[in-house]
Amino acid sequence: MKNFDITEDPHRRFNPLINEWVLVSPHRAKRPWQGQNETISTEALPQYDPTCYLCPGNVRANGVSNPKYDGSFVFENDFAAMKQDEIMFEEDIKHTFFKAQPERGISRVVCFSPNHDLTLPEMTIDGIENIIKTWQKEYTDLGNIKYINHVQIFENKGSVMGCSNPHPHGQIWAQSSLPTQVEKTQKNLKAYFDKNGRTMLADYLQAELRSGERVVIENDHFVALVPFWATWPYETMIISKRTFGKINDFTADETTSFATILKQLTSKYDNLFNTSFPYSSGIHQAPTDGLEHAEWHFHMHFYPPLLRSATVKKFMVGYEMLGESQRDITPEKSAEALRQLSEVHYKSKA
Amino acid sequence: MKNFDITEDPHRRFNPLINEWVLVSPHRAKRPWQGQNETISTEALPQYDPTCYLCPGNVRANGVSNPKYDGSFVFENDFAAMKQDEIMFEEDIKHTFFKAQPERGISRVVCFSPNHDLTLPEMTIDGIENIIKTWQKEYTDLGNIKYINHVQIFENKGSVMGCSNPHPHGQIWAQSSLPTQVEKTQKNLKAYFDKNGRTMLADYLQAELRSGERVVIENDHFVALVPFWATWPYETMIISKRTFGKINDFTADETTSFATILKQLTSKYDNLFNTSFPYSSGIHQAPTDGLEHAEWHFHMHFYPPLLRSATVKKFMVGYEMLGESQRDITPEKSAEALRQLSEVHYKSKA
Ligand SMILES: O=P(O)(O)O[C@H]1O[C@H](CO)[C@@H](O)[C@H](O)[C@H]1O
Ligand SMILES: O=P(O)(O)O[C@H]1O[C@H](CO)[C@@H](O)[C@H](O)[C@H]1O
Repeated sequence: MKNFDITEDPHRRFNPLINEWVLVSPHRAKRPWQGQNETISTEALPQYDPTCYLCPGNVRANGVSNPKYDGSFVFENDFAAMKQDEIMFEEDIKHTFFKAQPERGISRVVCFSPNHDLTLPEMTIDGIENIIKTWQKEYTDLGNIKYINHVQIFENKGSVMGCSNPHPHGQIWAQSSLPTQVEKTQKNLKAYFDKNGRTMLADYLQAELRSGERVVIENDHFVALVPFWATWPYETMIISKRTFGKINDFTADETTSFATILKQLTSKYDNLFNTSFPYSSGIHQAPTDGLEHAEWHFHMHFYPPLLRSATVKKFMVGYEMLGESQRDITPEKSAEALRQLSEVHYKSKA
Repeated sequence: MKNFDITEDPHRRFNPLINEWVLVSPHRAKRPWQGQNETISTEALPQYDPTCYLCPGNVRANGVSNPKYDGSFVFENDFAAMKQDEIMFEEDIKHTFFKAQPERGISRVVCFSPNHDLTLPEMTIDGIENIIKTWQKEYTDLGNIKYINHVQIFENKGSVMGCSNPHPHGQIWAQSSLPTQVEKTQKNLKAYFDKNGRTMLADYLQAELRSGERVVIENDHFVALVPFWATWPYETMIISKRTFGKINDFTADETTSFATILKQLTSKYDNLFNTSFPYSSGIHQAPTDGLEHAEWHFHMHFYPPLLRSATVKKFMVGYEMLGESQRDITPEKSAEALRQLSEVHYKSKA
């Protein structure tokens, strides 16, 4: 009987943030692929597109014109998944199985730049700092609304991630309940904090820095790494070195450091397959329910779907939907690949 | 302030099988779609494809030839995610964050028919009964292996669901641990059974039959319905009327009834957008760990990605990955649409 070798043998890894396992099959990366390929648009985009509803000065679906903004620009989503209306609701407790409750919320779109043809990695550090300041303002303003208890900041990048407009933008969905994934995370963060008196991610970051194996980028204030329990092939997390719960706690230096690591990480992503690398990313931070949340530790997740090339993604389907998430390449191999890539975007001249 | 109207107002619904919520935005179905469209292959397939590694008589990647089978044919997956080798493993308890354990398992491929150009809804009831018998045999054989505690039977249909070969087939992944989703489900089923002395799904089915709103097909032994907490636009579940835990408990009549409802449901799916409707489906049933599992109640899930047409799917991305699953059309509307469609496949002459 051979000894367990984590670089070769099929195994499961535990994700303490959500208390779930992932199946890792290191040997399976050699599998040939005859399935669906994504199409990549190589079409050069204009700096300004008169038909784009996010470009400055253009008219949106609801008839309102965008201002001639520079920097970032925020507006209320014209097709929001939640509404602000307060709804009268009496819970029908007879319904064991038909449990539903109204949900109030606000959805906003954050344009990252007036330039239609830019993406996050191609922006300047100043430009990215400007987005961070916009996120801070939105987190504060939305969080201050009495019935808003959670503010989810995220970006869907690339058509394969359901993004319907290449104009650089993200979204914010703010709502009265804690969404399922956040509630699970909070429960586990809290249990850890109550037991250890430190945040789970402070201790986890120490362990990762000691090991070094999964670290992709480290600067004075943040670390980008492939989590030990990553499910997507090139999934990463950015974790703050200092322990604090929310984006508004950034010092001026941390703002610059965060902008820098965002630019470097997303540039590495683009350099991996010489393509505008698709992903969904988002910040997990303290809820805005007015309570103290010493258990929260600021972090950002990146979930990119690509596996082997610009056109072959990982499909999280049958077994994954019914059983559990499964990955082929080990997180250590992914981290090594990302670490070795340049932090300078392949399209930039420097 | 208006009263809560579940057909119109944004709300969350609770899924008692996995103890999670889903966000429902009924008003959002009107949102225009400018994003990615799936490509559908309209190419007619041959009955036999000399390059297909699943067709009878052909040689697979590992050099082995398929027999000239009729009916269904099962073989060991050439690129399995798990291996059968027993591995020596000493848990390193110092590792709070790097928790991993080897996993043993067996992956098999189940060809549904020798005909390369058939799909499940186009097969005869006899042909489908034959697949069910194959599933029963595999559940028994794999389940009898000492270290196999769970047998996941599933199908990925369509290239959009990561299926790399149109030859009709499914898969079986059998393993030593309970996969994450199954473990969650078992926990909730058990809590319900311990409290009420009946299975959760027996009671849920009664409630759904009384309401009728989400029922798609009902026959003597099975019901196909859109669960109250469905996340995918046209997600369904087939639940047995009689309470039993596993596919091997089927009577002869139940086998025929299950084949019939499978054919009818998947035909309705194809009829919805006049296309071979993609989905991942799979059976959730009692583990094969040798324990009694009175809490389990046989059911099968269908997770189809399409939303508006043969080419526009629902993207479970940013908010869904970081926050919670979100749907636009209500389960009641989806059930109504499926209910009204013919059970006879649009391609069949009858
Ligand atoms: O085994 P296949 O069909 O090659 O692969 C497909 O199904 C598997 C099980 O759901 C997934 O892990 C793969 O991502 C998917 O492409
Ligand atoms: O709001 P958008 O960009 O139109 O839509 C996109 O992001 C949303 C939030 O993740 C998803 O619900 C949609 O399925 C996706 O297409």
